[in-house]
Amino acid sequence: MLVAELAQRYLPPLDAFMRDVVESAPTAPGFDTLLRYPFGWVDANGQPYHHPTGKRIRPILLLLCAEAAGGDWHSALPAAAAVEILHNFSLIHDDIQDDSEIRHNRPTVWKIWGRANAINAGDAIFALAYSALSRLNATTSPEIALACWQIFNLTNLELTRGQHLDMRFESQASVTTDAYISMVSGKTAALVSASAQMGALIASGSTEKAAHFARYGLNLGIAFQIHDDILGIWGNPDVTGKSAATDILSRKKSLPVLYGLAQSPTLNAVYQRNPFQAADVDEAVRLLDTIGAHEYTRQSEAAYFQQALDALHAALNGRSQAANDLLRLSDLLFERSF
Amino acid sequence: MLVAELAQRYLPPLDAFMRDVVESAPTAPGFDTLLRYPFGWVDANGQPYHHPTGKRIRPILLLLCAEAAGGDWHSALPAAAAVEILHNFSLIHDDIQDDSEIRHNRPTVWKIWGRANAINAGDAIFALAYSALSRLNATTSPEIALACWQIFNLTNLELTRGQHLDMRFESQASVTTDAYISMVSGKTAALVSASAQMGALIASGSTEKAAHFARYGLNLGIAFQIHDDILGIWGNPDVTGKSAATDILSRKKSLPVLYGLAQSPTLNAVYQRNPFQAADVDEAVRLLDTIGAHEYTRQSEAAYFQQALDALHAALNGRSQAANDLLRLSDLLFERSF
Repeated sequence: MLVAELAQRYLPPLDAFMRDVVESAPTAPGFDTLLRYPFGWVDANGQPYHHPTGKRIRPILLLLCAEAAGGDWHSALPAAAAVEILHNFSLIHDDIQDDSEIRHNRPTVWKIWGRANAINAGDAIFALAYSALSRLNATTSPEIALACWQIFNLTNLELTRGQHLDMRFESQASVTTDAYISMVSGKTAALVSASAQMGALIASGSTEKAAHFARYGLNLGIAFQIHDDILGIWGNPDVTGKSAATDILSRKKSLPVLYGLAQSPTLNAVYQRNPFQAADVDEAVRLLDTIGAHEYTRQSEAAYFQQALDALHAALNGRSQAANDLLRLSDLLFERSF
Repeated sequence: MLVAELAQRYLPPLDAFMRDVVESAPTAPGFDTLLRYPFGWVDANGQPYHHPTGKRIRPILLLLCAEAAGGDWHSALPAAAAVEILHNFSLIHDDIQDDSEIRHNRPTVWKIWGRANAINAGDAIFALAYSALSRLNATTSPEIALACWQIFNLTNLELTRGQHLDMRFESQASVTTDAYISMVSGKTAALVSASAQMGALIASGSTEKAAHFARYGLNLGIAFQIHDDILGIWGNPDVTGKSAATDILSRKKSLPVLYGLAQSPTLNAVYQRNPFQAADVDEAVRLLDTIGAHEYTRQSEAAYFQQALDALHAALNGRSQAANDLLRLSDLLFERSF
């Protein structure tokens, strides 16, 4: 089990590092709990416990990229902590924006403490992500620390640009598949890209090699999101844990749907029905199948995944154990088999 | 007119620098307007115009501190832009948290684009503040750029800690004056402190000198807030532009009020009246006057201001024109006479 093996190697020191960063924040009554709850370290009353809050995919990928690029992964821990802390910040603000009440099987931050406190907790955790990253000062050269800072800034702008487009699409009559890929590049893929890029840069010191890793991460992130879009319509409920065609029921503008809406006036008509019920969902899925939306999306995913692999092969000169692991991990992410 | 003179010297290059940072953000339909509106560069439709959005006190202070510390203020422009951009980010999120509909005589970001978009715009502008600061890489040594990064991280954590306490106090039965000063140190004074500290550090390269400037800024910021608290009760409406005793009417827990509530059971009783009307406001102000709250607060302000001046004198060895200007500017800020 590759992922379990990687998790066992990386996650204890990562968790310790993240805790040290969060615990270095200035303290105030109630503030400390708000900073720890999102990571699953305390309950809503501030009592220590352990609650699982995600698979830590991004930091695992970052550290494995550092190894595959030929360096010591320990020196990349500040960046790994930074991307995971940043991811948690973005979930806090996303949950306010989406009115989501549950995250990782617990009430969301805004649901417990209200929107004003959740905005502020997110802002604090945003700053903590930068605090973590700035500790690169102790593990790498000033030049590489500063280069990672620039990468991180651009990543955060990409994240907010993607989030902006995602919200904008909801009220937009038509969205092109190009615009959709642009949104996904920011919202989902930018942080995966930055993870791969920073891991490689810290490990190798080579901007050129890191650029290949960035391209790997970007395309992997896009393929990952497209795979999610496929599962949201054609996924097996027993495997995904969600009801079938859940994205159709919520009329989400995912890639297969955008393809379908552009091809089929009938689908457009179905999508405008109000109310929109189970029979409409079935009809929409049938229409998508008829016009080949499933196949189109699968091919799109495969194309991005191939670009990711091409970039990775361009970056890896010579195969190490870590390089092999990274290729295997890429496959696993693609298959979502863990 | 010192302030007009400083504004004339610093603000055109500062504004150009800030625009360059904001324009370097990745672009998307609607996103660009959200990033420019808070700075008064475009209207809500994205049409260019110029709307005044504040006096840019923090960057002016930062650049003057750089000069007073014996350096070239131009090399501190990235930090000056960072503190001003950060200040604007914090206003966007504050306005959501406070449900404020007007800022700088215009509708607030959330009022125009909704809360979800305003949270996201704030996040993007937060990242832009870091983008601005990271350009120190081009104007100073890597070591100083990294040190400023650390200062900025801690400042942002202090800002959110202060904001947390401020919101917490609203629902808290009793707040000590110590807790209040702790809140103000974060919410108001931390960014003033960081401005003075970074300006001095960039200009002089001396951590020790910069620490004096930090202490100057922190105490100046606290004195500034206490002065605001005095004006909120005893300010002349013709000068402040607000109605008399406006902080009493909103039952704000400012320093004079906290002092009064700790001293006077009668004031506690008055403050718990519901409804709380004009006659109650008058009675509360009379009670505050009787127990010497005005005098207490004035002395507290004077003490912090004196500590600010002491720190400044410790930092300035030898008087330059800039050092004299900085002392005069401190007086002006204290008197709020511009």
